[in-house]
Amino acid sequence: MSKVNACVIAGGQCKFGVREASYIDMVQEASKACLDDLPDLKPRDIDGLLFASTYVGRNSCQVNPAPVVAERVGLKPTSICTRVDVLCAGGSSGILLAQGLVQSGMAEVVMVLGSEKLYTPERWQIQYGEIAASDHDWDAPQGIGPPPLWFAMQAKDHMKHYGTTREQLAAVSVANYKYGFNNPKGHFQNELTIEEVIEAKEIAAPLGLFDCCPLTDGAAAIIIASEERAKDLSGRPLVYLRGGAQVSLHSVTANWPGKHLGDWPHMKLAAEKAFERAKLSPEDIDVAQVHDCFSISQIIELEELGFCKKGEGGPFMASGQTNLDGKIPVNTDGGLLSCGHPLGATGIRQGIEVVKQLQGRAANQVKGARFGLTHNLSGVNVEHTIVTYGREPKK
Amino acid sequence: MSKVNACVIAGGQCKFGVREASYIDMVQEASKACLDDLPDLKPRDIDGLLFASTYVGRNSCQVNPAPVVAERVGLKPTSICTRVDVLCAGGSSGILLAQGLVQSGMAEVVMVLGSEKLYTPERWQIQYGEIAASDHDWDAPQGIGPPPLWFAMQAKDHMKHYGTTREQLAAVSVANYKYGFNNPKGHFQNELTIEEVIEAKEIAAPLGLFDCCPLTDGAAAIIIASEERAKDLSGRPLVYLRGGAQVSLHSVTANWPGKHLGDWPHMKLAAEKAFERAKLSPEDIDVAQVHDCFSISQIIELEELGFCKKGEGGPFMASGQTNLDGKIPVNTDGGLLSCGHPLGATGIRQGIEVVKQLQGRAANQVKGARFGLTHNLSGVNVEHTIVTYGREPKK
Repeated sequence: MSKVNACVIAGGQCKFGVREASYIDMVQEASKACLDDLPDLKPRDIDGLLFASTYVGRNSCQVNPAPVVAERVGLKPTSICTRVDVLCAGGSSGILLAQGLVQSGMAEVVMVLGSEKLYTPERWQIQYGEIAASDHDWDAPQGIGPPPLWFAMQAKDHMKHYGTTREQLAAVSVANYKYGFNNPKGHFQNELTIEEVIEAKEIAAPLGLFDCCPLTDGAAAIIIASEERAKDLSGRPLVYLRGGAQVSLHSVTANWPGKHLGDWPHMKLAAEKAFERAKLSPEDIDVAQVHDCFSISQIIELEELGFCKKGEGGPFMASGQTNLDGKIPVNTDGGLLSCGHPLGATGIRQGIEVVKQLQGRAANQVKGARFGLTHNLSGVNVEHTIVTYGREPKK
Repeated sequence: MSKVNACVIAGGQCKFGVREASYIDMVQEASKACLDDLPDLKPRDIDGLLFASTYVGRNSCQVNPAPVVAERVGLKPTSICTRVDVLCAGGSSGILLAQGLVQSGMAEVVMVLGSEKLYTPERWQIQYGEIAASDHDWDAPQGIGPPPLWFAMQAKDHMKHYGTTREQLAAVSVANYKYGFNNPKGHFQNELTIEEVIEAKEIAAPLGLFDCCPLTDGAAAIIIASEERAKDLSGRPLVYLRGGAQVSLHSVTANWPGKHLGDWPHMKLAAEKAFERAKLSPEDIDVAQVHDCFSISQIIELEELGFCKKGEGGPFMASGQTNLDGKIPVNTDGGLLSCGHPLGATGIRQGIEVVKQLQGRAANQVKGARFGLTHNLSGVNVEHTIVTYGREPKK
């Protein structure tokens, strides 16, 4: 038995934003957009479903959602029908698991569908959910939750140790909003200036309103198939999954693995593992979607991924190196800052954008892109997930 | 690249029952039992963790539990660290996903750990959780939840169409409790008579107290590794994962796929798919762990798996065909009825028992067992999951 290669054959998403819609409404929109992306693919061809969502049980009161989602989008899976959850990285986790199922021959065509209904008029529900997402025994009782105090502390440490400036943080928001301007399915379609970012309402110093991704509802779907089925079904250039990494070294902020909060060795390890497994290096990557839940995150991620030297993420951003004519175009559809971050859907949205880039059909196209990656962090920065994509399979 | 085979190399569980323990206490006990099962394996050898749990967010207030569990059991995963959830089949789902990761070469050694803290003095929490596990739009508002009314209706239909008797239902509980008698880690260690089962408190006619699995807390862990690592690490006979199936054809009871409620074509399809993928037939199976959440479930499952003809599950049970000297020993460690059913942990407990059987070290040993399977149904019987195991790999 020789190993099968796994390809992405279709993708689609619903409009992200504050939606007057249930999670089911949104998965139906995303699934339809995904199936419309490849009309030759019929729902009966799909033998697996992985549904990524964290808050569906809390906010939508649906436990065991995978069979419900399968029925509502017209699938009858026979290989796998399971929910996956790792908060902000659920979608990417689903893509890695689908790659495993397809490459091992355990499934042929798997839809990975992610959705989150986050906005409810009841603010306590959101805040309580965020706190529940921290380590419940140690961090949550101290008020340490994902947004945004904990990331403000990381920003301060990065500024202290590397001289990163407020303007350099703002450059992330400006760059990503600029890319998001022509993405009608993102949360926002407006450009920002450095001044607007700096003068915006302070959320947790040094982070202001536009340094933080918004609270967003949304869903996205992507389909992974064996290379053989991909060749049958898709007329587009093939895009291969080349492997990735999901690294978790700690769950309690007091066990922080770095020398300070601007040093993310768990992400560095994830990058090393992913590049090693994908037989790629940072220099091979033509386009990247990284987890810009806050402006500071993207600066540190560019460093830990090896796109610039450690500590130089601020000047790298400020000099426009993530623009289309820069060293490495990043978050080319707007990222979390402009598209919003419906947790389980985010890794899938990122994957769709990378695939479009490698197929030459992105709105903000990187010329001749052959290799791309996506990155997510989860929770209070306790886990890093990287997925790599290429126009050719790993040899 | 040639495909890797995946083996089970270790397993262990905590004591199942009504536990004065948190889910973390229980995963630590289970993980220790699992690591003690193979002392040459060190936590640093484990590069992946899949954590199966449905109610950890609701009952234990921990969202994104995988990194928390990894830290508390001493793992530092670099390949995968994700929660999976498909209610009663989460553990089996994790095993299938781990098989995919290992066979594809994306991970080398993966722990699948399942846990559920179900019992709380607040009954509403349990009942509300059960209702949330039905299709929330259609079934839950009508009061259709997993236990036990819906299964009583299935029992009635099976009795009506096939002449199954109350005594035959009771024979399931008697047989499984008998196996559970010498399993100190199960919920119960007592034998029952047919009369005791029939005369017990009625829960939902025709099902009485002992026809229903109890509300149980627990955790279980199993480790899947590449054949190469298994040969290095384990001195025991190798047990291979040969593939399986997870089938979901509907989520709303009104879309029931069978001719009546005693007819489970979705389970029949799961069995056909699993046997086809495993290159096995029902006749090859030496030992099976099936999902006896209710006595009626096991009767129908024996039929749909092909161990007896359709409609003959009742007489098959009553004539002792699932005993050690019968046609197919079933639920040899006590099953859900005697061990209890801590959802995410159940498929793992079943897998551990099958592995012990194939290695010749089970408490109720089936002589010379070479092939085994586990089966779970999920929710209001909306999904069926089958995992197959063998002393030799699939050719």
